[in-house]
Amino acid sequence: MANRVGLWLVGAFGGVGSTVAMGLSALTRGLAADTGLVTAGPLTAGLGLDAPADFVVGGHDVRQSTFRESALGLNERSGLFTARMIEACSPDLLAWSDNVQLAPTDETPKEAVARVQADLRAFQKQYSLDQLVVVNVASTEPPFAAGPEHASLKALQAALSRADNPVLPASGVYAYAALDMGVAYVNFTPSFGATSPALDELARERKAPYAGQDGKTGETLLKTVLAPMFAARNLKVHSWIGHNILGGGDGRTLSDPANKASKVKSKDASLPAILGYKPQSLVSIEYVESLDDWKTAWDHVHFEGFLGTKMAFQFTWQGCDSILAAPLVIDLARLALFAKRKGHAGVLSELACFFKSPLGTGEQDFFKQWRLFEAFVGRHGG
Amino acid sequence: MANRVGLWLVGAFGGVGSTVAMGLSALTRGLAADTGLVTAGPLTAGLGLDAPADFVVGGHDVRQSTFRESALGLNERSGLFTARMIEACSPDLLAWSDNVQLAPTDETPKEAVARVQADLRAFQKQYSLDQLVVVNVASTEPPFAAGPEHASLKALQAALSRADNPVLPASGVYAYAALDMGVAYVNFTPSFGATSPALDELARERKAPYAGQDGKTGETLLKTVLAPMFAARNLKVHSWIGHNILGGGDGRTLSDPANKASKVKSKDASLPAILGYKPQSLVSIEYVESLDDWKTAWDHVHFEGFLGTKMAFQFTWQGCDSILAAPLVIDLARLALFAKRKGHAGVLSELACFFKSPLGTGEQDFFKQWRLFEAFVGRHGG
Amino acid sequence: MANRVGLWLVGAFGGVGSTVAMGLSALTRGLAADTGLVTAGPLTAGLGLDAPADFVVGGHDVRQSTFRESALGLNERSGLFTARMIEACSPDLLAWSDNVQLAPTDETPKEAVARVQADLRAFQKQYSLDQLVVVNVASTEPPFAAGPEHASLKALQAALSRADNPVLPASGVYAYAALDMGVAYVNFTPSFGATSPALDELARERKAPYAGQDGKTGETLLKTVLAPMFAARNLKVHSWIGHNILGGGDGRTLSDPANKASKVKSKDASLPAILGYKPQSLVSIEYVESLDDWKTAWDHVHFEGFLGTKMAFQFTWQGCDSILAAPLVIDLARLALFAKRKGHAGVLSELACFFKSPLGTGEQDFFKQWRLFEAFVGRHGG
Amino acid sequence: MANRVGLWLVGAFGGVGSTVAMGLSALTRGLAADTGLVTAGPLTAGLGLDAPADFVVGGHDVRQSTFRESALGLNERSGLFTARMIEACSPDLLAWSDNVQLAPTDETPKEAVARVQADLRAFQKQYSLDQLVVVNVASTEPPFAAGPEHASLKALQAALSRADNPVLPASGVYAYAALDMGVAYVNFTPSFGATSPALDELARERKAPYAGQDGKTGETLLKTVLAPMFAARNLKVHSWIGHNILGGGDGRTLSDPANKASKVKSKDASLPAILGYKPQSLVSIEYVESLDDWKTAWDHVHFEGFLGTKMAFQFTWQGCDSILAAPLVIDLARLALFAKRKGHAGVLSELACFFKSPLGTGEQDFFKQWRLFEAFVGRHGG
Repeated sequence: MANRVGLWLVGAFGGVGSTVAMGLSALTRGLAADTGLVTAGPLTAGLGLDAPADFVVGGHDVRQSTFRESALGLNERSGLFTARMIEACSPDLLAWSDNVQLAPTDETPKEAVARVQADLRAFQKQYSLDQLVVVNVASTEPPFAAGPEHASLKALQAALSRADNPVLPASGVYAYAALDMGVAYVNFTPSFGATSPALDELARERKAPYAGQDGKTGETLLKTVLAPMFAARNLKVHSWIGHNILGGGDGRTLSDPANKASKVKSKDASLPAILGYKPQSLVSIEYVESLDDWKTAWDHVHFEGFLGTKMAFQFTWQGCDSILAAPLVIDLARLALFAKRKGHAGVLSELACFFKSPLGTGEQDFFKQWRLFEAFVGRHGG
Repeated sequence: MANRVGLWLVGAFGGVGSTVAMGLSALTRGLAADTGLVTAGPLTAGLGLDAPADFVVGGHDVRQSTFRESALGLNERSGLFTARMIEACSPDLLAWSDNVQLAPTDETPKEAVARVQADLRAFQKQYSLDQLVVVNVASTEPPFAAGPEHASLKALQAALSRADNPVLPASGVYAYAALDMGVAYVNFTPSFGATSPALDELARERKAPYAGQDGKTGETLLKTVLAPMFAARNLKVHSWIGHNILGGGDGRTLSDPANKASKVKSKDASLPAILGYKPQSLVSIEYVESLDDWKTAWDHVHFEGFLGTKMAFQFTWQGCDSILAAPLVIDLARLALFAKRKGHAGVLSELACFFKSPLGTGEQDFFKQWRLFEAFVGRHGG
Repeated sequence: MANRVGLWLVGAFGGVGSTVAMGLSALTRGLAADTGLVTAGPLTAGLGLDAPADFVVGGHDVRQSTFRESALGLNERSGLFTARMIEACSPDLLAWSDNVQLAPTDETPKEAVARVQADLRAFQKQYSLDQLVVVNVASTEPPFAAGPEHASLKALQAALSRADNPVLPASGVYAYAALDMGVAYVNFTPSFGATSPALDELARERKAPYAGQDGKTGETLLKTVLAPMFAARNLKVHSWIGHNILGGGDGRTLSDPANKASKVKSKDASLPAILGYKPQSLVSIEYVESLDDWKTAWDHVHFEGFLGTKMAFQFTWQGCDSILAAPLVIDLARLALFAKRKGHAGVLSELACFFKSPLGTGEQDFFKQWRLFEAFVGRHGG
Repeated sequence: MANRVGLWLVGAFGGVGSTVAMGLSALTRGLAADTGLVTAGPLTAGLGLDAPADFVVGGHDVRQSTFRESALGLNERSGLFTARMIEACSPDLLAWSDNVQLAPTDETPKEAVARVQADLRAFQKQYSLDQLVVVNVASTEPPFAAGPEHASLKALQAALSRADNPVLPASGVYAYAALDMGVAYVNFTPSFGATSPALDELARERKAPYAGQDGKTGETLLKTVLAPMFAARNLKVHSWIGHNILGGGDGRTLSDPANKASKVKSKDASLPAILGYKPQSLVSIEYVESLDDWKTAWDHVHFEGFLGTKMAFQFTWQGCDSILAAPLVIDLARLALFAKRKGHAGVLSELACFFKSPLGTGEQDFFKQWRLFEAFVGRHGG
């Protein structure tokens, strides 16, 4: 008999969260193809991953809304989903919206962790869930500097109840709450999340797998696909300039320089790792209101070939962030739940191909990351 | 002591051939970096490949010219090479030009093979060469249909002296001549070359390695790098449209529809092999005189993501064909000479990553091709 | 009191025709802004042009369908219109669909003209219309060569009843029918329409204004805007390559080489007229099914500046043909109705800025065409 | 008999100044076509403008160098000019380099003006010049705020000898020096130059014509050509994002945020003036070392058409700044010398089509600016 699993979305009513909910409902009802889902491919066919119909959705959000409301907004502003799909999936969207709790904002980390865990337990009990996974799809936080309190679990726990200068940002609270319960945790954003020796210790101790961070959906995906080609052909990249323009909630958040800093850093690390030297590079992210949930990236690569000749490669990528991210969130939820069942504890570095800043490995080359993923699947009978 | 090796270029005075000659001279004289040479990278460092200084250049051409003349033309029309490089390398360019013989055009295949072999032997003797390699960098021929005469070596040999309806096009004559002498042969063009059971039989019998075909320098390279990404992410490619505009000799040759047919076919095969289905696709090649040796490719990829949303990826590639091709020709010459020393006979399918239409394997995914190459190097102590 | 005017669309149920109907209804109902309508600007404010609410729509089509059906198709396949707009405008769309008659296909030109005129008279009578205008928005026909029968009205009339080798293609039948009734006629396509001395004679005799041809909506509009800049700056255009990929009904029609020939010819005439010399140029149009009603044009302009330096300008235009064309159809209908009221007979060369192949003038420079339009408006008190 | 005229370049040894010198020499020697020169076209043919052979070049620079040295640098780093051209023009380049004086940097404005004027007089005397024109092609200065001292000539003169907080930046010193001598002055940069009531008063009093500012060579030229099309078609521009990447001296200067501020302001003013409303807009300028004297601009225009449909237009412009700017500098020098002969005093607003921030007019639409220029030529018998 099938597992019954709970997917807990932090930032549930955002574009990504709502598209995840719509997607699970549409897949279950046979209203959509599984295009965009990595785990729909032949590679993972033998793993016995949880089916869309096995999922119940819940989460936290600072907004009071519903998945349906949010989906209607994406439809009107950005042309996502069909009218028929929205209508048919509305019962699920509304039912699952009742599982979304108001996010803690004013508590100390210790209090917040306690509240999140209580919410998770109530969710699990209400639906008699076999397993839970927590995925952070909330807006990007400003960079958060780790200190000595993050060097060990003991130090972190001692500082948890500190009220002024909280020891964990919101993303860290959710990571702590999940891992502490032995629940799988995925950080799809560049926020702090589970990064630090303390949280890694916690994960291993409580036998919780975790993965992150910052879903690799567009421009960075292309960089980590294309840079290996320049390296293999021994073409010297002089400069790689990337300009991203985007609207929507994500764009608005990133137009705040503090939040943007986290994102740009996450996007800019891949080239030196792949090429073996640091070309001049620039990544800009600009908010363009009229683009709504759509993003256009323009990248200009100036490179040198044989006998000093300079050449240029340019691309434009016109993608919809929620649509690109949502299936990867479902993939990661399925894989993290699977890893937990297989007894995996700690960081899932084998899932690097899903992330801009993969945890547990410095590998940035997409195709080498893919081989890590293939090996992971192979080890578990896929 | 170092080998002394001869590189015999068919179509020597074309843009690629002249850039190969300039490159070998400039590398030997320390006037250029080894950028663009795959075999300058760490992967092949332990193989003991021949150094640029070990090479002597010769070849055939239908034109009477010199490498220097051709290089000056590339400099004036397309801005390649520096004045200083041309001056310093002129002695080599002029000396090597004397090794270029007028190509046979009116003989029967049998007579032409005999003449080519006599020229190769004279070249080898004159320079006391340890080894030879023949590389076809001549203009693309119209498609040539194989018949029953190409099904076995015996049948081919019987038909070789046929005067009307010759059994081998020019590219096949050179392939035959080289392989029959046990000399390594590389077809860098989409022309007929060594494709057919008869020539494969010949190669294996005479212990000659061969590789081909059609050097993967630009748009197709990108296709075979990018298509695996769409496949890995389960994004459905609806259409992939590629328009190539180019000038120079190559552009002029390809503006003849018969020659273009060979090229377009070679460029269009990769997508179905990688994606597992056939998207709508189009490859056009147009001659634009003012571009000279430069090429611009514009590719438009229309793909579907999650929940039926269509997105677009576009790129422009502005490359110089001679500059991209020449180092790969040197790489292939070095690797084919090495393979011959290692006793390899027949097709070098492990060099698939260098070709648009790899012989001996259906693998089109650049990164899987790269793994074949890594395995080849590994087997031989690299 | 307001005029009551009839807009008769040839090819009514196509993308353009259906968007015109949707637009007139949505504007009347206050559901859409007048964005994209040239005649909504200040220039023509004083002319007393007919308001959207003054229009009744009818037409001919070879298909049996409704405007609503066609609009739903555009919505589903290409994301045009909102659900609310479709619902609110459906009564108009359905009512107007009843005014669309089956197009004549098997008659001689003489019989077809008679039937079209009967349909126009019935439409005028049913709605007590003060004026009529006929606009051709049907699919592009193959090129039609004018002969001696088109040199004078008399010769044409003598040949009209010819059954084999008909003297007028469909587009010419509608032009004849309209002009003969003294009704304004606009050819928005590159088809034959009203081009020929015979039809011009007819128009002047019956006091009917006409305009054409081939609405300038996208790539050609940009060419005629950009080429004047290259001319003004004395930059020498070596080559101008334009590749258009498009889906939808228009794309399918143009994938037939015979129809494409008309279009390419219409698109390729502007550069020499503006630049004063003929650069190398190419215009390709390719059908890409997945693009539906959307079109992407990629243009590459290679030009020379001071001291022989070559530079490049490239653009991509991602537009929706129906959406770009429909407001211009409404503009032209309003202006042709106005011209008829002002007593204008014969060709409206002052409307050149709306067309790829303007009739009555060789002017291709968009800004000089705009000055012709301004002068026309000025002469009539605008 | 021909005039003998002096062209005094401020920032003479920069890329633009050196290309101007090379251009005048190459044109005189018949080694280059007049491509890129607006005043080589038919419009100004009847004005009797000074021929290239009539010019002597001099100037100021903070660097000690020669035009030849600078031209060789452009050749090596950016591929400009041919070897033959450089060799043939070297005598002129070297002779003119002797006319370049070290620029004043530490003096009070009053002292600097005196020194500049002495240098101009010596130059005029040495070559028995009939007329002089001063053109500023120096690097962009940081923004300079005008104060009450710039409100009238009297107030300015009173403040000229102020040592701390100098009342004029370098560009203003040259403008003052030229205008005060009745010499024509052109500001090809966005620097302060002749902007202010005080300098305008000076120009009119001394009968000196002046023009500016900031040569319109690339991205802004395109904006002012394309925006009128969007306006004429009533297409609503939601956002216009422009990213410029460039190397060379200009790029390095602009990578200083203070200097960049002047440039971005100059580039961003045109859209609201042409469209009649302010779309979201962004202009970035980034220094990319490997591009040398070349610039790539990527512009993304997001616009709305009929019935709320959003569409996109993107372009890339790959131009060489010195090559685009130099002929315009020669045009402006010829036109300013001509205007002086015709008795023009004060601002030459009719030359707006040459500038990003035209002085004396708010007109930004390139084609309306062109009509101003045509009218100017017409008034003077062209």
